Amino acid sequence: MNQIVQSEKMKYGMAETEAFLRLSAVLILVLTACLVGFDSQTKYVVFFYRKATFRDLNALLLLVYVVSVAAGYNLLQVGKSSLSACFKPNLKVRTNIYLAWICFLLDQMAVYVTFGANSATFQASLLAVTGQEDFQWIKLCSKYTRFCFQIGGALTCGYAACIVMAFVSSISAFNLFRLYTPKQFLQLKTAG
Amino acid sequence: MNQIVQSEKMKYGMAETEAFLRLSAVLILVLTACLVGFDSQTKYVVFFYRKATFRDLNALLLLVYVVSVAAGYNLLQVGKSSLSACFKPNLKVRTNIYLAWICFLLDQMAVYVTFGANSATFQASLLAVTGQEDFQWIKLCSKYTRFCFQIGGALTCGYAACIVMAFVSSISAFNLFRLYTPKQFLQLKTAG
Repeated sequence: MNQIVQSEKMKYGMAETEAFLRLSAVLILVLTACLVGFDSQTKYVVFFYRKATFRDLNALLLLVYVVSVAAGYNLLQVGKSSLSACFKPNLKVRTNIYLAWICFLLDQMAVYVTFGANSATFQASLLAVTGQEDFQWIKLCSKYTRFCFQIGGALTCGYAACIVMAFVSSISAFNLFRLYTPKQFLQLKTAG
Repeated sequence: MNQIVQSEKMKYGMAETEAFLRLSAVLILVLTACLVGFDSQTKYVVFFYRKATFRDLNALLLLVYVVSVAAGYNLLQVGKSSLSACFKPNLKVRTNIYLAWICFLLDQMAVYVTFGANSATFQASLLAVTGQEDFQWIKLCSKYTRFCFQIGGALTCGYAACIVMAFVSSISAFNLFRLYTPKQFLQLKTAG
């Protein structure tokens, strides 16, 4: 009995940590999306005003979409786990295993897609900062300095969100794989 | 006794799968590095010949380094596991756990760094293919077509390697987390 209580306690401790990490990830992801989405700077360039926004570069547009979807996904996951904590349905182990596999795969996908989009945007931004003389690609950040600094802040937030999401995906891997015995490949432990 | 034999069999089945996946990853990574590293095309551009190599773009240079290091790391891991299979040292569970944690963390780092470098190069290559009119960045792949196709092949190989490495990192997560009980947080199962 004592063991069961301890097990339940541990389960809720883990679930709380996971929910806290997911909520932090949502906040940072929303911050990233806002920093990129609301970034704009208008400059007078040879005879006309030119406004720089995130729509100028496909990578920035993609980053806003990816980050928003990742934030929505993590919010759904928090909602799902708080719902299941409220109703405490007596799920069978089988259902739990399928759910754990789905959570694991979705979490992995979320972190890889976010990280990939972030890295792509980082490369594009780096080219905008340094230019590429060989290719006759001019520097842009010497003109739109404030715009570029804000994008830099957004990318830092994006990488922070990736680190938090990588932690969360490790937790979901932990939740999945500890259900298996160490003795036989992909054989479940007896429920206890 | 029968269970122990089965357990040993399973362990070697897993280890073989892991070694096979790691060797495939090494091959694909080496192929990627070669495709990028030996890619060059010379074109006559306004009064002089201009040779395009991977050194023209920092992202390509970084990709070659990252991919080579990842291939070396995976080769070391294969060597380590085949050595430990030869000598079969009677490691204690504690040592195994530390090794499993190190493998897990290193594998995660390897796959994220490779994936990040690949995505960054993909973005830079996309800019070289499409150009960016707003920024007055000209297209380059209309000139160096063969060069760009080879880079495209290299990036496809790079992503394939990332998928294989993600599988390997899932296996190392499995090897680590199944050592823990499902009942208490981060408490090891009793050795059995």
